[in-house]
Amino acid sequence: MMNSFAMKIEPSHIGAIRELADRLTCELASTHPKVTRVENNPIPKRDVLVSVIEDLKSILFPGFLQTEKGSGNDLHRFLEIRLQDVAKRLSGLISQSLVLDRRFAHSENRDSDFVETAILPSDHRLLEQGQALAFQFLDGLPAIRSSLATDVRATFDGDPACNNLFEVVLCYPGLMAITVHRLAHQLHKLNIPFLPRMMAEWTHGETGIDIHPGAVIGDHFFIDHGTGVVVGETCVIGQNVKIYQGVTLGALSFPKDDQGQLIRTQKRHPTIEDNVVIYANSTILGGGTVVGHDSVIGSSVWLTSSVEPFTTVVMEKPSLRMRSDNPGEFESPLDYQI
Amino acid sequence: MMNSFAMKIEPSHIGAIRELADRLTCELASTHPKVTRVENNPIPKRDVLVSVIEDLKSILFPGFLQTEKGSGNDLHRFLEIRLQDVAKRLSGLISQSLVLDRRFAHSENRDSDFVETAILPSDHRLLEQGQALAFQFLDGLPAIRSSLATDVRATFDGDPACNNLFEVVLCYPGLMAITVHRLAHQLHKLNIPFLPRMMAEWTHGETGIDIHPGAVIGDHFFIDHGTGVVVGETCVIGQNVKIYQGVTLGALSFPKDDQGQLIRTQKRHPTIEDNVVIYANSTILGGGTVVGHDSVIGSSVWLTSSVEPFTTVVMEKPSLRMRSDNPGEFESPLDYQI
Amino acid sequence: MMNSFAMKIEPSHIGAIRELADRLTCELASTHPKVTRVENNPIPKRDVLVSVIEDLKSILFPGFLQTEKGSGNDLHRFLEIRLQDVAKRLSGLISQSLVLDRRFAHSENRDSDFVETAILPSDHRLLEQGQALAFQFLDGLPAIRSSLATDVRATFDGDPACNNLFEVVLCYPGLMAITVHRLAHQLHKLNIPFLPRMMAEWTHGETGIDIHPGAVIGDHFFIDHGTGVVVGETCVIGQNVKIYQGVTLGALSFPKDDQGQLIRTQKRHPTIEDNVVIYANSTILGGGTVVGHDSVIGSSVWLTSSVEPFTTVVMEKPSLRMRSDNPGEFESPLDYQI
Repeated sequence: MMNSFAMKIEPSHIGAIRELADRLTCELASTHPKVTRVENNPIPKRDVLVSVIEDLKSILFPGFLQTEKGSGNDLHRFLEIRLQDVAKRLSGLISQSLVLDRRFAHSENRDSDFVETAILPSDHRLLEQGQALAFQFLDGLPAIRSSLATDVRATFDGDPACNNLFEVVLCYPGLMAITVHRLAHQLHKLNIPFLPRMMAEWTHGETGIDIHPGAVIGDHFFIDHGTGVVVGETCVIGQNVKIYQGVTLGALSFPKDDQGQLIRTQKRHPTIEDNVVIYANSTILGGGTVVGHDSVIGSSVWLTSSVEPFTTVVMEKPSLRMRSDNPGEFESPLDYQI
Repeated sequence: MMNSFAMKIEPSHIGAIRELADRLTCELASTHPKVTRVENNPIPKRDVLVSVIEDLKSILFPGFLQTEKGSGNDLHRFLEIRLQDVAKRLSGLISQSLVLDRRFAHSENRDSDFVETAILPSDHRLLEQGQALAFQFLDGLPAIRSSLATDVRATFDGDPACNNLFEVVLCYPGLMAITVHRLAHQLHKLNIPFLPRMMAEWTHGETGIDIHPGAVIGDHFFIDHGTGVVVGETCVIGQNVKIYQGVTLGALSFPKDDQGQLIRTQKRHPTIEDNVVIYANSTILGGGTVVGHDSVIGSSVWLTSSVEPFTTVVMEKPSLRMRSDNPGEFESPLDYQI
Repeated sequence: MMNSFAMKIEPSHIGAIRELADRLTCELASTHPKVTRVENNPIPKRDVLVSVIEDLKSILFPGFLQTEKGSGNDLHRFLEIRLQDVAKRLSGLISQSLVLDRRFAHSENRDSDFVETAILPSDHRLLEQGQALAFQFLDGLPAIRSSLATDVRATFDGDPACNNLFEVVLCYPGLMAITVHRLAHQLHKLNIPFLPRMMAEWTHGETGIDIHPGAVIGDHFFIDHGTGVVVGETCVIGQNVKIYQGVTLGALSFPKDDQGQLIRTQKRHPTIEDNVVIYANSTILGGGTVVGHDSVIGSSVWLTSSVEPFTTVVMEKPSLRMRSDNPGEFESPLDYQI
């Protein structure tokens, strides 16, 4: 009787694998995005970026998130060591992003493929620039922490199920989403390519909350539950705004230029002014749509035009069809719709 | 030609990092939640909790979820070793939670900050209490397994795409969500702070299903697909209930007390009686809303009032605007709304 | 003063753990799915499968996703080594799935429990078959890569926020979802049990996008944002289709056979023809529902019947109730609905 599913590749299959590697090499060189090298190319790697995000989170909320073995109780010393670690890896990632981006700048079209991936001598300046940008980014951390403290407070104030401020940091995915967004937005403002979107998508995967790094978001921001929230690239959100699960702040249509290409720069997403609450699963669309300050958008509302300040918008009581299926009353069950 | 993006921090930057650590230390001590120590504080750590959840899952479904190397085929021995491991780590986590929670009890307001984090001699009793509570929790595992067996059966019975009972455990995120919920609810009933919500949010991140640990949920429960489901803290759900993706069982409004503070104890979320099915993306709101037994709520329904037993509720056929864009019929494309 | 929450289990608790292991062993043997052994059973393990998925992704997009240390710059050599690794582990997983599945085939009902898990001498043929199927699967990788190249292009063409083709691979969860779907669908076509659904659910957890491996999806496919998307088992989707977050392509009802059992084979989900766009949070239901080619379904539409080619479907402007809460105008705040 066998005890294991451990497999050895039979010799007859070695040739099949070689032939398959041939076909794949050929396919990889002829379809986009083309890649001909694996190592030492300037592609920023997700696993390195995730380790940087985790370290930044533990700098902003020390002692909360991870087991920091052997870090001792000296907060200043802990921060110094972590910041050095982050600076090294982040400098590398930014440099890679700049080098990769330059490949596209040198080609005629942004949609061109990319074959030569090794670092060129002319890239040297970009490596220095990467380190300088990393330090510019890190310099913004105290201000980001200051904003995040207002988000922690907004979360406690906004959820009756929340017991204290520590619970906010330990439990609320909305706080993690806005934490990473404030970091990604800082990179975005420094015009660093690739990394902001990669950070945003990592958090999107973790929380179900998809905030484009370009979105401008004021202090005292609170997203509750959060799964399915989408905040578009050109959104502008004021102070003290609260958003529930499933809310989309999206685009109404994508205008094209004379050549039929999508126009990629125009404001396409709404503006939400101060002190607005948007309840679950509402959809607000359009670059010209402004929700005035101190307004409330009820749940499941679908809105494509602007709203004055101090306005409450709710769905009219929807038309529902109700029918008793009590077997004592009806012979046949209703053919209900899922 | 360089081959690497590995960076060294230049000496000139060492001073910049020290100065940044100064500013961050200052910021961390002046904004909430304040933290002045990193190690040996009573903050329960997420990574330890996740390892406990994974071990509990492999106790409830042994052999299914992870590669248990060297665990042998003696089920009893496997369970004994795993239970010991879990008991140790869970006792520590519960004690930390109790100590942290006492800090808030001693302060005048639940929203106060928390500076002194080290363990005090007076906390000693809480450490013993942590171990006692851990064993009370573990004692409930056989009953939880018994409920989960009914959930496995409900999943198989409820999904025509499901082939057998093993597929339920291997593939269904809804089963993982109710598994962790039944564990978190047990901790919640023992009045253990922090950990139940941390467990619920971990599963929320994994599955997109957000069930508050306070929710009371009967046997034979099945959530299909599940992304975007929100089940509020004071929900009461009967036996044999089926829920689809995007369903919110939420609050209608948050009443405030005389001081304008949110009232945090009242029933705010619906009651769902036995044998109810709620289809995709429906929203049911309000603490007084009762969906009577044997009812069916169709997809995309928005419901804020009670429904009698044996009732089917569906949307009226919605008003849709259709227009042919066939270039043969129209000159210009419709300016559609996204 | 204590410095640690490290706990030792007190001797008095050792007996409690043994007694608890007794009760759990008993419970596990009497409720389904029954398991009596932990090791050497034919249950495919999720962590092994995840490592296979990650390796397959790095074969299809080499250099993009992970840090491939020491892999050198020879793409062909890199592919050969990775393919060998994948072939070994995948052969084992497929064999386990075949052996497990046979247990159900030998029992009278698919919902029966499963007690004997060890590998039988009669299973030997299934081990060989597992390896043969693994190679059949791997043989399809070049064609899958070819389809994925069209999906990369469709993503760039479909999102004005996207800057270049590399960003698609680095940042878009929709691309990861369709990548894993094309792999899972290939396993599904080879009639391999368990693994396709396990792969799909892993991606569902990562991205919030739930595509059943049975769904047939054409080239140039793009899902944007994606959280909450559900694509059912019997969907047929043409070429050049674009889908946004929260879209459900689902079933209208589940017919039962004469014995009251769900019928598990019939087409239950819609057909979407070429060049269709479906905007956020729309729900399209029913096996007979066909969305004709070159149609546009607006956001939040609920559709249960077919639509001609070249049709645009949007919600009628919904009935919204607006009311100013400007304190200057009204005395009391509106009792708004969440």
